Amino acid sequence: MASTAEHDAMRRALAIAANGPRGVNPQVGALLLSADGRVLAEGWHRGAGTPHAEVDALSKLEPGAARGATAVVTLEPCNHTGRTGPCSEALIAAGVARVVYAVSDPGDHSSGGAERLRQASVDVEAGLLAEDASALLDSWLTVQRLGRPHVTVKWAQSLDGRAAAADGTSQWITGPAARADVHRRRSDADAIVVGTGTLLADDPALTARRPDGSLYDHQPRPVVVGRRPVPADAAVRRHPLPLVTDSGRDLPGLLEDLRQEGVQRLFVEGGPDVASSFLRAGLVDEVLVYVAPVLLGGDRLSLRDIGVTTIAQAQRLEVADLIPLGDDVLYVCAPRQAQGPEEGDE
Amino acid sequence: MASTAEHDAMRRALAIAANGPRGVNPQVGALLLSADGRVLAEGWHRGAGTPHAEVDALSKLEPGAARGATAVVTLEPCNHTGRTGPCSEALIAAGVARVVYAVSDPGDHSSGGAERLRQASVDVEAGLLAEDASALLDSWLTVQRLGRPHVTVKWAQSLDGRAAAADGTSQWITGPAARADVHRRRSDADAIVVGTGTLLADDPALTARRPDGSLYDHQPRPVVVGRRPVPADAAVRRHPLPLVTDSGRDLPGLLEDLRQEGVQRLFVEGGPDVASSFLRAGLVDEVLVYVAPVLLGGDRLSLRDIGVTTIAQAQRLEVADLIPLGDDVLYVCAPRQAQGPEEGDE
Ligand SMILES: NC(=O)c1ccc[n+]([C@@H]2O[C@H](COP(=O)([O-])OP(=O)(O)OC[C@H]3O[C@@H](n4cnc5c(N)ncnc54)[C@H](OP(=O)(O)O)[C@@H]3O)[C@@H](O)[C@H]2O)c1
Ligand SMILES: NC(=O)c1ccc[n+]([C@@H]2O[C@H](COP(=O)([O-])OP(=O)(O)OC[C@H]3O[C@@H](n4cnc5c(N)ncnc54)[C@H](OP(=O)(O)O)[C@@H]3O)[C@@H](O)[C@H]2O)c1
Repeated sequence: MASTAEHDAMRRALAIAANGPRGVNPQVGALLLSADGRVLAEGWHRGAGTPHAEVDALSKLEPGAARGATAVVTLEPCNHTGRTGPCSEALIAAGVARVVYAVSDPGDHSSGGAERLRQASVDVEAGLLAEDASALLDSWLTVQRLGRPHVTVKWAQSLDGRAAAADGTSQWITGPAARADVHRRRSDADAIVVGTGTLLADDPALTARRPDGSLYDHQPRPVVVGRRPVPADAAVRRHPLPLVTDSGRDLPGLLEDLRQEGVQRLFVEGGPDVASSFLRAGLVDEVLVYVAPVLLGGDRLSLRDIGVTTIAQAQRLEVADLIPLGDDVLYVCAPRQAQGPEEGDE
Repeated sequence: MASTAEHDAMRRALAIAANGPRGVNPQVGALLLSADGRVLAEGWHRGAGTPHAEVDALSKLEPGAARGATAVVTLEPCNHTGRTGPCSEALIAAGVARVVYAVSDPGDHSSGGAERLRQASVDVEAGLLAEDASALLDSWLTVQRLGRPHVTVKWAQSLDGRAAAADGTSQWITGPAARADVHRRRSDADAIVVGTGTLLADDPALTARRPDGSLYDHQPRPVVVGRRPVPADAAVRRHPLPLVTDSGRDLPGLLEDLRQEGVQRLFVEGGPDVASSFLRAGLVDEVLVYVAPVLLGGDRLSLRDIGVTTIAQAQRLEVADLIPLGDDVLYVCAPRQAQGPEEGDE
């Protein structure tokens, strides 16, 4: 059972964890408490290549001052030697007597810290305020689970599935509420991908903007895929973050590169060819479709070939939410396993 | 002010009106009341070429017996000489002193009966139980207003607007609840149209069936459009009602022919070519789209060219209802006037 002092310490550890950057490494906070519950030191993780939170806290004490102390950490202390040594060893070496943590480390290389601590007779308690810690680590945990960034594919379409009218005009199929929603979701993403087709047709800025035109604090990095060059005067070159370009021919490779650069949430904004490629490759975790109450007909489709040839292979979607936005409706979906046809008749 | 006896008589007139067939002519009921409120006679209209309700009621009395009586009729007495003489003249000739009716006759040729009666010093009161009478006459009034049958175009599609997978398989994009809903709505229609493309691909029965396979009481007439012949063993030949065939090249002409045969509500069930033609011709009053939470990609589109070339010409829809049916969603829409683009940005 965690003590009241440990509860309070965990709340504080969660608060200071959020000071660290969201990136390749998790946001983690740690406190060291004396046996009678006083705070000896605090620490948090400042990003890849810098000390982990526990080590940061230990570094603030004189040698020997942590003997018999309790470490309260938001994430299970790691057990692997990366750019920094394993935290479990550092805690053992410092003579820490008890470790309380919130969330287990899901990593293949880094987990096992709790086990190692117990072997060294450290008292270990897991799961304190685990929900709050999971919420904070949501994106990072997703990346650990998937082994790549979380991918959202988004498009706007007419009810009959067109991304544009026959002459290519598409602004604006959907209304202001739908567009505001897109920008808000963009601001939650770490990068936005578009193909050169969309870049050359629409010259998008790829920034996340409020309805008044101002930029959200968190901006997604702009990524353009394709072999055609990005024009010197493209709007995307005026994005506050530097442009990433890629051939787009190796999507898993692109995702790995982006992950290495700290991208946890990727927004794929099309066009139809690029969206279809992500779906065909099975690299999509979320599908957002903004459906306008409009019919267009013609051949400007919102998706092209997604690798389905017969109805039994249909890419079925789990619809998590149907959100009215002005006249439009947002489908929030997750792809699910293909199923056989259902019973019935015409 | 209508008396209690007249109220009761109107209720009875509405009840007996429903005995008549739904068809080219309206369902109408009439009662003749003595000056002190006793029922002298009842009548209803049994379909085109038979006496109107008022005349049917008068025919049950001895000559002179209607002198000074009140006629209570669900629809304004007609004023034109069709296959039967004008009812207004018949009522005047019979010496009826007062006429109470529910709904005005919207017809160009037939309206003006109330006017004629008043000229002949008959006391006329309009609008008694008008809502109930309008509900009963709904389809017929719609036909009068549109000058043609009410047209519903219905299709089932994947979220990305496909009617079938690449190999043509489409059964079943939508689930059992959506299919049951289609059949229920079919049973409200007087005819269903499909193109030869759908006929030859799917061999549909075009009956309205309950989930247990039994037929609804009211069946739509099957109509196949196209120049290719309907095979001798086509399922549609076993429909309880005789098959109508038509080239489909003159849709207004087809609608007029169907109206002449008493079709008030027409269901257009595709395929994509026929649905697109009805939309292109502006002959659609209701659009029903059953959207399955599925992505298909490929080129089997639910609509083809509907005559829209640029976004400002988009066929905008008024969405009257979004109805969840199992995993699917039914969009109930009415086409509306094309509008310019809305304000906003990408
Ligand atoms: N309604 C919407 O939500 C929406 C969203 C975006 C765009 N649009 C519309 O869509 C149209 C452009 O769409 P689009 O399909 O032609 O272009 P796109 O998907 O934006 O770009 C396609 C191009 O991207 C490059 N590419 C790189 N990697 C790729 C991959 N893995 N898969 C496919 N392509 C890859 C290729 O160009 P290279 O030859 O340069 O290699 C390819 O030709 C525009 O009219 C735009 O307005 C609509
Ligand atoms: N998902 C759905 O709700 C749904 C519904 C129905 C069908 N389908 C699928 O759609 C496919 C068939 O569609 P389709 O588009 O090829 O066939 P269709 O629309 O059923 O039939 C097209 C044919 O109808 C005839 N036609 C007559 N008047 C016409 C007019 N005014 N406009 C257009 N065509 C007219 C022409 O044939 P002639 O050469 O004989 O004159 C034309 O080729 C099948 O795969 C079927 O399974 C899906």
